[in-house]
Amino acid sequence: SQIRHYKWEVEYMFWAPNCNENIVMGINGQFPGPTIRANAGDSVVVELTNKLHTEGVVIHWHGILQRGTPWADGTASISQCAINPGETFFYNFTVDNPGTFFYHGHLGMQRSAGLYGSLIVDPPQGKKEPFHYDGEINLLLSDWWHQSIHKQEVGLSSKPIRWIGEPQTILLNGRGQFDCSIAAKYDSNLEPCKLKGSESCAPYIFHVSPKKTYRIRIASTTALAALNFAIGNHQLLVVEADGNYVQPFYTSDIDIYSGESYSVLITTDQNPSENYWVSVGTRARHPNTPPGLTLLNYLPNSVSKLPTSPPPQTPAWDDFDRSKNFTYRITAAMGSPKPPVKFNRRIFLLNTQNVINGYVKWAINDVSLALPPTPYLGAMKYNLLHAFDQNPPPEVFPEDYDIDTPPTNEKTRIGNGVYQFKIGEVVDVILQNANMMKENLSETHPWHLHGHDFWVLGYGDGKFSAEEESSLNLKNPPLRNTVVIFPYGWTAIRFVADNPGVWAFHCHIEPHLHMGMGVVFAEGVEKVGRIPTKALACGGTAKSLINNPKNP
Amino acid sequence: SQIRHYKWEVEYMFWAPNCNENIVMGINGQFPGPTIRANAGDSVVVELTNKLHTEGVVIHWHGILQRGTPWADGTASISQCAINPGETFFYNFTVDNPGTFFYHGHLGMQRSAGLYGSLIVDPPQGKKEPFHYDGEINLLLSDWWHQSIHKQEVGLSSKPIRWIGEPQTILLNGRGQFDCSIAAKYDSNLEPCKLKGSESCAPYIFHVSPKKTYRIRIASTTALAALNFAIGNHQLLVVEADGNYVQPFYTSDIDIYSGESYSVLITTDQNPSENYWVSVGTRARHPNTPPGLTLLNYLPNSVSKLPTSPPPQTPAWDDFDRSKNFTYRITAAMGSPKPPVKFNRRIFLLNTQNVINGYVKWAINDVSLALPPTPYLGAMKYNLLHAFDQNPPPEVFPEDYDIDTPPTNEKTRIGNGVYQFKIGEVVDVILQNANMMKENLSETHPWHLHGHDFWVLGYGDGKFSAEEESSLNLKNPPLRNTVVIFPYGWTAIRFVADNPGVWAFHCHIEPHLHMGMGVVFAEGVEKVGRIPTKALACGGTAKSLINNPKNP
Ligand SMILES: [Cu+2]
Ligand SMILES: [Cu+2]
Repeated sequence: SQIRHYKWEVEYMFWAPNCNENIVMGINGQFPGPTIRANAGDSVVVELTNKLHTEGVVIHWHGILQRGTPWADGTASISQCAINPGETFFYNFTVDNPGTFFYHGHLGMQRSAGLYGSLIVDPPQGKKEPFHYDGEINLLLSDWWHQSIHKQEVGLSSKPIRWIGEPQTILLNGRGQFDCSIAAKYDSNLEPCKLKGSESCAPYIFHVSPKKTYRIRIASTTALAALNFAIGNHQLLVVEADGNYVQPFYTSDIDIYSGESYSVLITTDQNPSENYWVSVGTRARHPNTPPGLTLLNYLPNSVSKLPTSPPPQTPAWDDFDRSKNFTYRITAAMGSPKPPVKFNRRIFLLNTQNVINGYVKWAINDVSLALPPTPYLGAMKYNLLHAFDQNPPPEVFPEDYDIDTPPTNEKTRIGNGVYQFKIGEVVDVILQNANMMKENLSETHPWHLHGHDFWVLGYGDGKFSAEEESSLNLKNPPLRNTVVIFPYGWTAIRFVADNPGVWAFHCHIEPHLHMGMGVVFAEGVEKVGRIPTKALACGGTAKSLINNPKNP
Repeated sequence: SQIRHYKWEVEYMFWAPNCNENIVMGINGQFPGPTIRANAGDSVVVELTNKLHTEGVVIHWHGILQRGTPWADGTASISQCAINPGETFFYNFTVDNPGTFFYHGHLGMQRSAGLYGSLIVDPPQGKKEPFHYDGEINLLLSDWWHQSIHKQEVGLSSKPIRWIGEPQTILLNGRGQFDCSIAAKYDSNLEPCKLKGSESCAPYIFHVSPKKTYRIRIASTTALAALNFAIGNHQLLVVEADGNYVQPFYTSDIDIYSGESYSVLITTDQNPSENYWVSVGTRARHPNTPPGLTLLNYLPNSVSKLPTSPPPQTPAWDDFDRSKNFTYRITAAMGSPKPPVKFNRRIFLLNTQNVINGYVKWAINDVSLALPPTPYLGAMKYNLLHAFDQNPPPEVFPEDYDIDTPPTNEKTRIGNGVYQFKIGEVVDVILQNANMMKENLSETHPWHLHGHDFWVLGYGDGKFSAEEESSLNLKNPPLRNTVVIFPYGWTAIRFVADNPGVWAFHCHIEPHLHMGMGVVFAEGVEKVGRIPTKALACGGTAKSLINNPKNP
């Protein structure tokens, strides 16, 4: 195994992701940030310097388990203190599993500001993937707003709330268009884009040769949008989800929620004299964003040769049956690790939208998460009782809660307590969706767990009940790090709390997390070794350790 | 003496300082921030909580000497670590002298974002001011841009530079207008403002009674603009500058540069059936901002009764002789402390605009200041040799330097060294202006010293030379904390380095400081007592003290 060393500087820069110039958070002058590529078992060292003028920064390595290095998880207020302007932090961790991952900011809404990039892990040197392909295409998806993140943050915490609205543009590898379409020739209502191909907003073309098999790695780090990916005339063979192999299946398109990743195989067996559309549309919310587009370019055709038919149509945004059908098809590849048959503990997490003192928030079992200034990892290791609420949040919600009506907000509060697990405990979480503040409205939320993969045991409509127990899949549930809850539905997951550290579990929709939609899990913090000083140099840990040092 | 306790929360909020909504940095929901009012000798305690989402924050108490509390000076990277989001810092200091002061952010360009307010110190309880007045009006002046501070910061540090341009609006107590004028009736080219008076951008009216004397306290915290203040038909009697009494003199208008404050007395002896214009125009730079306006409202006249003639015309922006004439008239009031007759040390600071690696910077003796992540005060107290350059910057510039031609940039560099003084040393600083990058251009810069008042011994045109020595004023030089250097001119100041701490001395133009136009002074740091832990919890001090505590 090797050490992969990266030296990065984070700073704002002028950039035009969708042809409109704005300030974007870049790394070493690039947007999206540089791709990390390593083999399973390698060490990755990222020497990250904060070149922002007034903002702290952290980077989370989404899908990397951080076994033994919980302080490197890159979540501000949880695993570390934010890195101050001018300072450098060394992230140092092992990438255990091959797969398609990414990294992104995890402070305020800095992910939305453009702080993200790909992290690809190949099998250990000398080992092969369990499927063959001739070439690879890497696709990182995101969504983009013209309004600055700073304004968005203020709007979300204003009274009354100012919602961010739908994104202006879907970006494919940081590139998209606004107020024009590269597929205008099929629709007289669209304005054609005048692009030469060298612009920062020119599409990232997929160049392929005919009669070959390609692996397309697709990851979504959207702030809000639930996406659907399709290629004209080409079936997709799904082989990987969130860095775990899945039982391969064919589909015409995939749904991908924020925080998820997939690998699909395509075979370039179509008419080689044509090019084909790659289309990324939005779903699950009433859409107001045109699809992100690019071309599958069969070489040696010119990229200026547009396909004979328009881009594949994105399925109806509210065809949730179709979404469920796709999601339910995902199962673990044969030979994947199976979940423990029994759980030690099961917690139920009710997802509600609430109003607290006039502020719109999201809450889990009536608690809306507001992260404390002292990161939990250090606070727990050094037993700082005032750093966060020592009472754990509720593990259940009232049995008679009516998920079909708007919440009453009576007991909802701001909180920062922690769900603490015994090391090795087998934990089930039943995520329960419910009606929002508005009548007859419930949204889709992709929940992401740090520090673990989990088995997705099942999904269902309505409220989870004891009768569903027998429907849970213990045979071949997929291992994932992100899973969706559908409107008014439930999702059951299981994981083993065997990774000492403190771990966020949260909705991956950036504004939802910002509005409190997350919880904090912890296990075996007493087993955590040395934490770098810089991860502790803020809040209560700084105060305590400067006066009374205990850090070995 | 009393303790004046304030509990403040800093956060961005939507606000329309000039009728156009934007995000503005407010304190407790107010913009400008709350006014601090105390008597000389009082303690001021400000419990400051950072409610920003990703940015650190500090507040500098401009003009307050901070004797014994150098850690409370509120300069990020100099006196303290920036306060992290969610954290609270206690500023605790004594206000020694009566006068007109203000406070403002001192990290990045947060002052420009709206983080400022007034700080008024009355004489000690039971003592009176040395002049009589019947009422008082407090006026804090600033300038306002529509472009966000975040974009401005990126533009200034881009290659090529994107200059911020002239402000859209001059604000009087945080209020101004854009794209309309409240004095439109005198000029058919202007669009009248439709204001009811209750808007956040409606002018702050000066209500007065006839036949009285009023003290108008005027302070400027502009980011860029040099201002001129005048009231139609009323003479101004200047009595105070930067918290020091001056020999009273009459003038029709005053020039006020960023960082300065004045008190003027007016007598409301004009036709009592009329109202009069208060006009604040820009000078010293080619203007592109309409004057800030309000009314001197003679009660009980209606405020809707506009003056019979248009607002006083701001003197020509480039009439520097007029500016010098005003500035040179300021002398100390009788009985003011006199400067030591001899200096122990004299340093010469050449102000140049330069290009370093393609970036436009300002430099002092060829060094452009880039603040380090570890605050100097802690770094010096704990003798951290790697926190900043241990070599002091040059105290002179080449004798043959041609101030009339653009600089060659040959030796200009980024640096962070410190000028260190022996405690009690009498220090002279000769600030020397010069030609900028462009031919035939030299700008005005208001230099502000922290931790001290200084005597302004003199000014002159061209290069300072030994022959000027005899022209220096040792008899009644004014004591100030901010002094201007005129284009191609020099300014000589003297101060006693008797305040243990580390002190910024810099151009008060926000983008100039951001581009490196400052130096750092230090004296007697070994005499500095306990520094609050939070002021040390970053950079090298955090690292050193967490591993190896020495803080008592
Ligand atoms: Cu959500
Ligand atoms: Cu300047």
